[in-house]
This record gives sequence, C-alpha cells and structure tokens, in this order.
Amino acid sequence: MTEQADKKYYALDETTVVNYIQSHEKLSAHFDDDDTLTADEVGDGNLNLVFKVYAEQTPSRTMVIKQSLPYVRLVGKSWPLSIERSRIEAQALEFHNRLCPEHTPDVYLFDPDMYLIAMRNLDDHIILRKGLIEGIRYPHLAEHVGSFMAKTLANTSDLVMAHDEKKEQVARFINPELCKITEDLVFTEPYRETERNAYHEELTPFVRSLQADEALRVEVAKMKEKFMTQAQALIHGDLHTGSIMVNQADTYVIDPEFAFFGPMGFDIGAIIGNLLLNHAAQEARISDEAQRKDFQQYLEKTIVDLWYTFVREFQNTWDTVDAVNMPPAYQEDYMLRLLQDGAGFGGCKMMRRVIGLAGVEDLRGIEDTDAKTMACRRALGMGRTMLMNRHSFHNIETLLQTVTDSQPI
Amino acid sequence: MTEQADKKYYALDETTVVNYIQSHEKLSAHFDDDDTLTADEVGDGNLNLVFKVYAEQTPSRTMVIKQSLPYVRLVGKSWPLSIERSRIEAQALEFHNRLCPEHTPDVYLFDPDMYLIAMRNLDDHIILRKGLIEGIRYPHLAEHVGSFMAKTLANTSDLVMAHDEKKEQVARFINPELCKITEDLVFTEPYRETERNAYHEELTPFVRSLQADEALRVEVAKMKEKFMTQAQALIHGDLHTGSIMVNQADTYVIDPEFAFFGPMGFDIGAIIGNLLLNHAAQEARISDEAQRKDFQQYLEKTIVDLWYTFVREFQNTWDTVDAVNMPPAYQEDYMLRLLQDGAGFGGCKMMRRVIGLAGVEDLRGIEDTDAKTMACRRALGMGRTMLMNRHSFHNIETLLQTVTDSQPI
Repeated sequence: MTEQADKKYYALDETTVVNYIQSHEKLSAHFDDDDTLTADEVGDGNLNLVFKVYAEQTPSRTMVIKQSLPYVRLVGKSWPLSIERSRIEAQALEFHNRLCPEHTPDVYLFDPDMYLIAMRNLDDHIILRKGLIEGIRYPHLAEHVGSFMAKTLANTSDLVMAHDEKKEQVARFINPELCKITEDLVFTEPYRETERNAYHEELTPFVRSLQADEALRVEVAKMKEKFMTQAQALIHGDLHTGSIMVNQADTYVIDPEFAFFGPMGFDIGAIIGNLLLNHAAQEARISDEAQRKDFQQYLEKTIVDLWYTFVREFQNTWDTVDAVNMPPAYQEDYMLRLLQDGAGFGGCKMMRRVIGLAGVEDLRGIEDTDAKTMACRRALGMGRTMLMNRHSFHNIETLLQTVTDSQPI
Repeated sequence: MTEQADKKYYALDETTVVNYIQSHEKLSAHFDDDDTLTADEVGDGNLNLVFKVYAEQTPSRTMVIKQSLPYVRLVGKSWPLSIERSRIEAQALEFHNRLCPEHTPDVYLFDPDMYLIAMRNLDDHIILRKGLIEGIRYPHLAEHVGSFMAKTLANTSDLVMAHDEKKEQVARFINPELCKITEDLVFTEPYRETERNAYHEELTPFVRSLQADEALRVEVAKMKEKFMTQAQALIHGDLHTGSIMVNQADTYVIDPEFAFFGPMGFDIGAIIGNLLLNHAAQEARISDEAQRKDFQQYLEKTIVDLWYTFVREFQNTWDTVDAVNMPPAYQEDYMLRLLQDGAGFGGCKMMRRVIGLAGVEDLRGIEDTDAKTMACRRALGMGRTMLMNRHSFHNIETLLQTVTDSQPI
C-alpha cells in the first residue's frame, strides 16, 4: 500500500458507509434520489467489514459493501494484514464474472484507495454452511459448484490460457499474505503444538495421537509443498461452504480474496472436505438415525454429482487441446490427479477445521461435549483417511466409500 | 521494452563495442588508459552477440560483452524475441554470484537500455561440451556443478527463502518468451511432425517410431505440465554442457537467460542428459573400445559424483528445516522426487537434442552417417528409458545402470 493510498483509506461504519454510497454516482444510481439508506454491519468472517445497505422504504433496493481491515478480525490488531487483498478479490471476481457469471455476484465498484468492493446483496440467499447445519437440501448445488469450478479452473490453466498471459496473471495474483495464512493454519499449526490451535479440551488425547503420526505429517508436508509451488490455475483459495451463498434456485461463490495461481485440487478438496465435515457433524446433530442417514446420503450424492459435473464441464476444455501432444491417456491421468489432489487437500482441510484456529460451526456449534468429541474424532478419521489413501482412489465412489467407512481417530 | 529504451538500443559491432567500453568508466577502468582495444564477435549460441574485448598489447586485460539481439539468431529475423531476456540473465547472475560466487563469472555492468552485460572473460576456460567431445576429463566438474546446483536451487526454494520474498521473486522472474522456446523445442515439436525438427534423413524411421509411441507422449506431456506449473526454485533453465566453462581447476556456469522459478529437476536433468548425450556420441567418436569404455565410465562416475555432491550440499538446507512439519521421511521423499524429475526432464532433453531444432555438436558433428545414426538411436533409447522408467529409480546407480543398458530405438 503506498502512503498516498494509506491517507485516503479509513474504515467505514454504519453511518459513513451511507455517505460513501451517496458520494459515488455509480453506487447511488442503484437507489432512488429520495431513498433513506440504512446500513447493518454483518461481517462474520475473519478479515473484513461487511455492510448491507438498504433503502428503508424499499429494501429490495440494496447492496453490499465489503471493506478490508488492516488486521485479522478474528484475532485483532495484534495480527496486522495488508488490505491489498481487496485488490486480489476484485481481480478474481472480474475473472469469475467473465468465466462463470451465473454463479458470481455482480460487482458495482472496486475502490482501490478504500480497499472496498460494492456488489450485489444476495439477501435472498443464505450461507451454504448455515443451510446444511439446518439440514436443508439444495437440489442444484452440485451442478452449480461443479460447473463453477470447471469453468474458472480449466480456463485459467495452461490448457486454455495463452502461455504469456498465464505467466503475467501468475505474477499479478501473487498473494503472499493470504497464502501464508493457509500455509500456517492448514498445513503447519494443526500438526504440532501451537497456541493458536483451538479444539475443545476433551479432544486433546486424539489430537495428540494424530500429531504423533509421522507418516501423516509426511503427507501433509507434500500437500503444503504442492500448495506453495504448483501454479496450475487461478484458484478461489477458500472454497468452503462458508464461501457459497444458496437458495433453492441459485448458487453464488463469494469471497475470493485468497485467490492465486495454485493447485486446482485445493478448491476441489475445500468443497468436498467441507461437505464431509457436515456429514461428520450430523452424527451429533440429527438424532433420528433414518433421517440422519438420509441427509448424509444427500451429502454423498452431492459430492458424487459435483465431481461428475466438474469432469463433464472440464471435457469442453479437453475437446479443444491437441491430442498428439496431450493424448487421451494424459487427459485421463490429469483428471485422476485432480481427484487425488482433491482428496489430499480435502483431508488436510478437514483436520485443520477440527484442530486449528479457524473451526467450523458444523462441529464447534455442537452443544453436547461428548457428542462433539465423537463428531470431531469422526471428522479427523475421515480427513486422515482421505489424505493417506488418496493414491488408491481411482474414482469418486471409491473415495467416498473408503472415507465414510473409516474409523474415528 | 519501453519506447524510451527502444530508442537507446542499438546492436553493437566489433568497432562500436570498443567505443561503448571507452564511454563507460566502470568498464574502461578494467583497462589502462593507453591500451588499444580490439574486439572479436564469438557468439555461437542462438540468441546473442558475444564480444571478447582485449587490450592488444596485454591480452590478459580483457572482458566479455554479451548483448541480446531482438530475434533468435539461429533462425533469423523471422523469429523475433524480446531483448528483455538480458534483464532476466542479469538478475539470475546476481543470485548466482551471491549464492555461489566460486562458479559464477563476475559481472561488471548490466545496461538495461542496451540489453547488455559486461563480465569476466573466461578465456582460460573452454565450453565443457567442446572439451568432452575431445575426450578431455575434468576432475572437479562433478563436485563443482553439484555444489552450484545445490546452492542455487535449495536457497531459492521455499525451504530457505521467506514465503513473501519467494513469491515476489517468482513474479520478477516470469520469463514467458524464453520458457516458450523450451515448451516448444523440448516438449512439443520433437514428438510430432514439424518443419523445425532437424534430424538427418537416415534417422527418419526411428524418429517416426518414437513419435508413434503414445505412452511416451503421455509422459512427455506430464513433464511439460510440470515445467509450466511447478515454481519450485530459481532454476538456470538451460544447464547443458554448452552453458558450463571449464579447465582442469575451475568451473563456471554461464548464460542463465532461461532462468525462472521452475522445477529443480529441469537443471538436474539438463546436465545428466547432456553428459549422457556425450556418452552416446562417444560410441562413434572413440574407435578404440577400451579407451571408449574408459571415457564412458568417467562420464558415468561424473554423473554419480555430481548427484551425491548435490545431495550432500543440499543436506545443509535440510539441517535447518523444522523436522516436525518436514519429517526425515519427507526430506528423503523430496530428494527422491528430484532424482526422478531429473530423469524425466533429462530424458526429454536427450530426445529433443537428437530430433529437434537445436541439436548438439556431440552427435550432429559425427561425420560418418551410419555411425551418427547409431549414436543418435542410442541417445534416443537412453532418453526414452530414462523418462519412462523414472519412477523405478531409487538411486543414481540404478538410473545409470538401466539407462546405459537400454537398447537403441
């Protein structure tokens, strides 16, 4: 951040955000001249202020203002963080809007001085994680997210993008600070004793047992290395169920501030791993066994459908490549490696959500401690199995079978 | 290249290079005031002008001026090429000089407007490729090159470099045009019919047979993907025996204009593959069998020693990492993958030097056509075996045994 930009930046509040909108024609044009605007700060993420702004008389005239804070909100001012990340988010949204507008919110304005993005308010949607915790099913979720991933990942890889543009975009999207958060919170801290890990006390012996498993730490280190070195495509970088907004008809992927050119499997694993975290959590959340198994089967079917949608949509890209230098057997191997990378990253992401600083409400919100411990142990077992057995998975069905059959840690 | 810079650039000749030196104090300071300077253009590479400039009375006062041409010299003005590459070369030389000064030539000046580097004249050294063709042995070669690779590669990887500096350097070293040359000439063109391939007519049926091998093209595609996506370390990018200057005492690595953050195995494979190309060529060059076997054994021993020096020097880096998150078994696996990547890239580089546009004098200089065909078939067989069997190599000895035992294509 230049000093110049520094001076122009100030953190908004529920009052000043209204003034901000009124002073920017691009934004005020979304409202009527005589609208009275009101704002609610609703950010529940870790890094940003999020305002929902409405016209009081006609709340359907509305928008969201998302502004980066110069520190990690979850931890406080002791963990400073460059607000440059809103530039990355705006750039990634631009790509997503071009490649998959149907699942990306409209962006009205990016203000590089205020590190602020104004975008559509998806008020008639909820965060997928919340919906799944309540046991709501989304019939189009698999199709929509599978398609989003195929379009955004294939089209930003060397398979489609020109050799020079890809390399220039790699440089434009370097995202050291946000990548460091992932490097630390996903791949480092959960596997050793650190102050920031945040599991509940009763889980301690099971976490210790997992951390003592050297073979596991070897595989985690390989996944971390891949995360840090493989510039395969412009990935979302944080594609869990908290970054997806849904209703029964539509699906939107939000918050790509962790975006950079990384391994596609990291996005694939994020969504699969988070659906499986919900799967594990439902052991403690849905007491009726038939009802629980039924919902878990819905989650499993979502994962299978999501993968096959991804593969089907990715085929559009394979149809355009030169089959002399990229023969069919290479194409098959490429997709298999994506599945196995997805399993590896998904496993890491499941374990970190149980052990590490940033947990998930699916598990941490379970009130009964014994039930929570059991669900967490189940999630750890699934995560470890998914990572350790990844090279044995030759299709999504085997992956799911092996993982859901696994024993708790 | 900005327009401003464009205007300041002009290609030097043997006269103007002397004027250039005399007008730059940093350069003229290497000579006496009354020296009469004389210049020879000696560039035999594909991309640059190279002048050796001497004081006529005292030739030990000398330097080299290397200037980028705005096209590929080997092909001519029909293949334009940004002269930006001399910036990359200067940046890479800066790293090499810091990390391994003992095997990097001193740089006196980099002129970003003239795309020119002035450096030490290594006149008392010859290009390693020429020495090997003549059957000269270099007792310190393995030790020197193994050490150069370990120091330059380990220290520019995530194992040593800070997370943010590494990512900034990745961006600073993006090198789309030179990488494209490798992508085309090493990984694409040799494996299909193209105009630019340049093997001799008698080799045609053998090249056709190799190009028809789909399993081979699958593995080549995997290596190309790795080359294009794995930002593991700042690699030299062209570390063949033509980029190394030697005498009986010293070794210098030159010409890092292909440098970028890529897979370490590409450098490892380049040097091993080129030593093995010489090994294959000696079948036709040294007629006395005992003498030939003896020289080939020297080459094999050089490869073994080079690898173990690399591993030994790399250990300095492993000694500094945190063994909780990077356990010993991960470290061993990392080194094994480097060996196998080296085999994969080395195999590709051997085959391309036989089939593709840019050949090597070791093979193309063999006068007898039948002998040349046989040596080329041997090189192709070794290259294919090294690539296809790479995952079975668990040490350098097995690699060498398997490759030298392989049948000609």
